[in-house]
Amino acid sequence: MMGPDDRIMVAVSGGKDSLALWDVLLGLGYDVTGLYLGLGIGEYSDRSHDVAKAFADLRGTRLQTVDLERDHGYDIPTAGRRGSRSTCAVCGLSKRYVFNRAALEGGFDVIATGHNLDDEAATLLGNTLRWQTDAIARQSPALPARDGMVRKVKPLYRLSELETAAYAFLRGIDYVVEECPLVAGNTQLRYKEAMNAIEHTSPGTKAQFFLGYLERGMPLFRSEDRAELRSCEACGQPTTGRFCAFCRARAQILGDRIGDDPGPNDREVANELADEVLPVEIYEGAGR
Amino acid sequence: MMGPDDRIMVAVSGGKDSLALWDVLLGLGYDVTGLYLGLGIGEYSDRSHDVAKAFADLRGTRLQTVDLERDHGYDIPTAGRRGSRSTCAVCGLSKRYVFNRAALEGGFDVIATGHNLDDEAATLLGNTLRWQTDAIARQSPALPARDGMVRKVKPLYRLSELETAAYAFLRGIDYVVEECPLVAGNTQLRYKEAMNAIEHTSPGTKAQFFLGYLERGMPLFRSEDRAELRSCEACGQPTTGRFCAFCRARAQILGDRIGDDPGPNDREVANELADEVLPVEIYEGAGR
Repeated sequence: MMGPDDRIMVAVSGGKDSLALWDVLLGLGYDVTGLYLGLGIGEYSDRSHDVAKAFADLRGTRLQTVDLERDHGYDIPTAGRRGSRSTCAVCGLSKRYVFNRAALEGGFDVIATGHNLDDEAATLLGNTLRWQTDAIARQSPALPARDGMVRKVKPLYRLSELETAAYAFLRGIDYVVEECPLVAGNTQLRYKEAMNAIEHTSPGTKAQFFLGYLERGMPLFRSEDRAELRSCEACGQPTTGRFCAFCRARAQILGDRIGDDPGPNDREVANELADEVLPVEIYEGAGR
Repeated sequence: MMGPDDRIMVAVSGGKDSLALWDVLLGLGYDVTGLYLGLGIGEYSDRSHDVAKAFADLRGTRLQTVDLERDHGYDIPTAGRRGSRSTCAVCGLSKRYVFNRAALEGGFDVIATGHNLDDEAATLLGNTLRWQTDAIARQSPALPARDGMVRKVKPLYRLSELETAAYAFLRGIDYVVEECPLVAGNTQLRYKEAMNAIEHTSPGTKAQFFLGYLERGMPLFRSEDRAELRSCEACGQPTTGRFCAFCRARAQILGDRIGDDPGPNDREVANELADEVLPVEIYEGAGR
């Protein structure tokens, strides 16, 4: 996942997982910088930023901040109301875009996110229920860099939500406990509930499901990752179409037009999954 | 699945699905014989047999009966208490064995079972949660004949449980409504509950999952069906080991010994899934 000389950017939401990850990486002596993305979700975002900043100050480490409203002209509540995507989908899309672009522009070698086993199992369940074979193929805890995409790793993928929470508690980390207030109806949450119900009567199912996938499933899906990336004509970031999903979503939210024709893969893909659990969606438009 | 000249054996439990299937096949003019397997589960089995027999008499068609106690020396409650398998697992194993053997010995071309979409989606969920890639590979609604295995088809795989129930009701079919009294704790039921919870908020998920598997998933798993079958040294039926799972389970239940050494694949495989939903398990011991 990471070498001792890698410059690491850790995506920090202010929640237990990302702060636990940041804490662990600092403790192990890695060269790590936090990246906080301001989503503009009222007090929830304010508190998240405060918590991330307080953590950085306490450790004397770097926190970089991107703000969607300031830097890209919209916030998530507005995006949810105006765009064709669900709130969680446009939020996930925005995070993936911003993280990758910030890491590229800052010369980082790798982006680390705090996805835990519960996240990965729920995402895999969603991808499998739809047989989104290209997304399944890319659900690796370590995605190598390629064509303008920075390497992405999820070091906590073997730990349950309970374990990362316990770690954060025992380390005295102050984190945001509340869920995002916009999460109601989130598909991913329902997949987590379904996995929890099965786990309750068959303990070990989540681990069996995700780790079994890595061992026996993933090799079968490898050939399904067919996305060919080129540069978005608007922002230069990698995309499978003429314009990337971020630029298209942003234009729709702001009422702008980008380009005259929609491009070969320029269609709106239904995606109700949050970024926190569907990082692969950065390749939106790939595959079918 | 079936040609007009095929001799069809339909596996009849007395429930809505198998009787609906039998009804449909008779109505379409197929040459079809019912097969009822007596499991010895007290009044539940008695009533099931009565219902199947009454259906056959009413339609003036054939019902063949195999009785586990009479023909093989044990009943399911005893098997559940004495063997190393769960009750549902040994029941499923017994059904698969008896159906295939009866079809072979009776010269039938195909075995048709009443598995519906709910059954198939729940089974696929269970197989996928474990990444049992060999079982996933064989979860086809039409398994061709091979090496002593009669062709197996599930014509109702696109219909929901609700739809087969509505069909049986509208056709005035008297069927056993009660669940098997031994089903408590059945893993399959929990997978059905999980699928129902997701379907409730995302209608169409079951169909998307199973039909999506057939279209996009199954081709990727094809190479995983590596079972090589030979004849059981005790009964001659197909198996991957020296003795088939049925003969081994039966010997364990009756306190008999079969053979001196356990054979290459002769291990007990944890299988808590009922036959009604895991027909592929007839290849038990294959793969990993």
